[in-house]
Amino acid sequence: MDQKGILIVISGFSGAGKGTLVRKLMEVHNEYVLSVSMTTRAPRVGEREGVEYFFTEREQFEETIRQNGLIEYASYCGNYYGTPRKYVEEQLTAGKNVILEIEIQGALKIKAQFPESLLIFLTPPSGEELKRRLEGRGTESAEVIARRLARAVEESEGVESYDYIVVNDVLEECVEEVHNLVGAARRAPVRQRAFIKEIREELQKFSKGAD
Amino acid sequence: MDQKGILIVISGFSGAGKGTLVRKLMEVHNEYVLSVSMTTRAPRVGEREGVEYFFTEREQFEETIRQNGLIEYASYCGNYYGTPRKYVEEQLTAGKNVILEIEIQGALKIKAQFPESLLIFLTPPSGEELKRRLEGRGTESAEVIARRLARAVEESEGVESYDYIVVNDVLEECVEEVHNLVGAARRAPVRQRAFIKEIREELQKFSKGAD
Repeated sequence: MDQKGILIVISGFSGAGKGTLVRKLMEVHNEYVLSVSMTTRAPRVGEREGVEYFFTEREQFEETIRQNGLIEYASYCGNYYGTPRKYVEEQLTAGKNVILEIEIQGALKIKAQFPESLLIFLTPPSGEELKRRLEGRGTESAEVIARRLARAVEESEGVESYDYIVVNDVLEECVEEVHNLVGAARRAPVRQRAFIKEIREELQKFSKGAD
Repeated sequence: MDQKGILIVISGFSGAGKGTLVRKLMEVHNEYVLSVSMTTRAPRVGEREGVEYFFTEREQFEETIRQNGLIEYASYCGNYYGTPRKYVEEQLTAGKNVILEIEIQGALKIKAQFPESLLIFLTPPSGEELKRRLEGRGTESAEVIARRLARAVEESEGVESYDYIVVNDVLEECVEEVHNLVGAARRAPVRQRAFIKEIREELQKFSKGAD
């Protein structure tokens, strides 16, 4: 069986708990690593170079694009965001499952380039609970909450493009469920190409009596 | 989440241990049932009506086809084989996972009619091991073994149509792996239609401020 890591995209509604899930998954299972995005956006207070993002200048970002150094990138509110290729490919080769925490547009670009990537969409148990979580932070105005909900409506339009939809209700259960889905994904034909090729060749040889 | 059962097709190489796997799976987990096929073939010694097959006359079989009473059927060596619709639909509604042990042509017909069905292809760990298992029975001539191997080559051409390819090496592990795949399959969007519809409707309502 193929021992290369799996490229995992985690998307989901704002408030679905993506960040918490990813941190816990990496804490419990050491075969996961998180890809850190590159951005031209200025660091916010508390953000650390190479942890939340790799912060870079516009010229450097565009040069990286030209050198095919990003596996996907997008422009959002006048800033670039992208996924550096080198780290992802190195980690996959080393057998690590690489997690990208990105949105649907990026997710679809990843799937087009890497058909064997795994797209997971994270959701709270219900729309009601999602709304409650957004409000529960207590830090946002009604207007901001309404805008996030409108965004969630848009995000919900894309969920059929994902391989799996996972409900984040109890964190520990959700972590194990995602881990099991990654195990299941290893059994999909798209991730068993080497094995399929090998068994076909063996069978052909045997059936011709060449053994 | 949808509580209907999942329709599971198990195919695989002759010698992959499909029958043993299915029996063990039903023994360990009580939410699985096996669909019994209808056939016009004569019973062999030891075969029991309603256990191995429902044995029937040609006229009766063709009448069942006309009444849309089979979800798939095929003709093989001059005999009909088919899957009765009523039992499958009743069991799925009751929340049971219904297993069909059929070959690729039937599997593809099932997937076309039931996009939410789950197709699993079972294989020994290698072509070498498959050959050994076929020979190991000690009951077949070299010619029969060669014919089965040739058939396995054909079967191997269809594996990409399956959702998952599972290696049957240690039976108990294989049983749990298949059970986990069925759990994973519940998280695919095609089997989450009711949940997706519901959360979309809720979100739309909330974002319009109608709560």
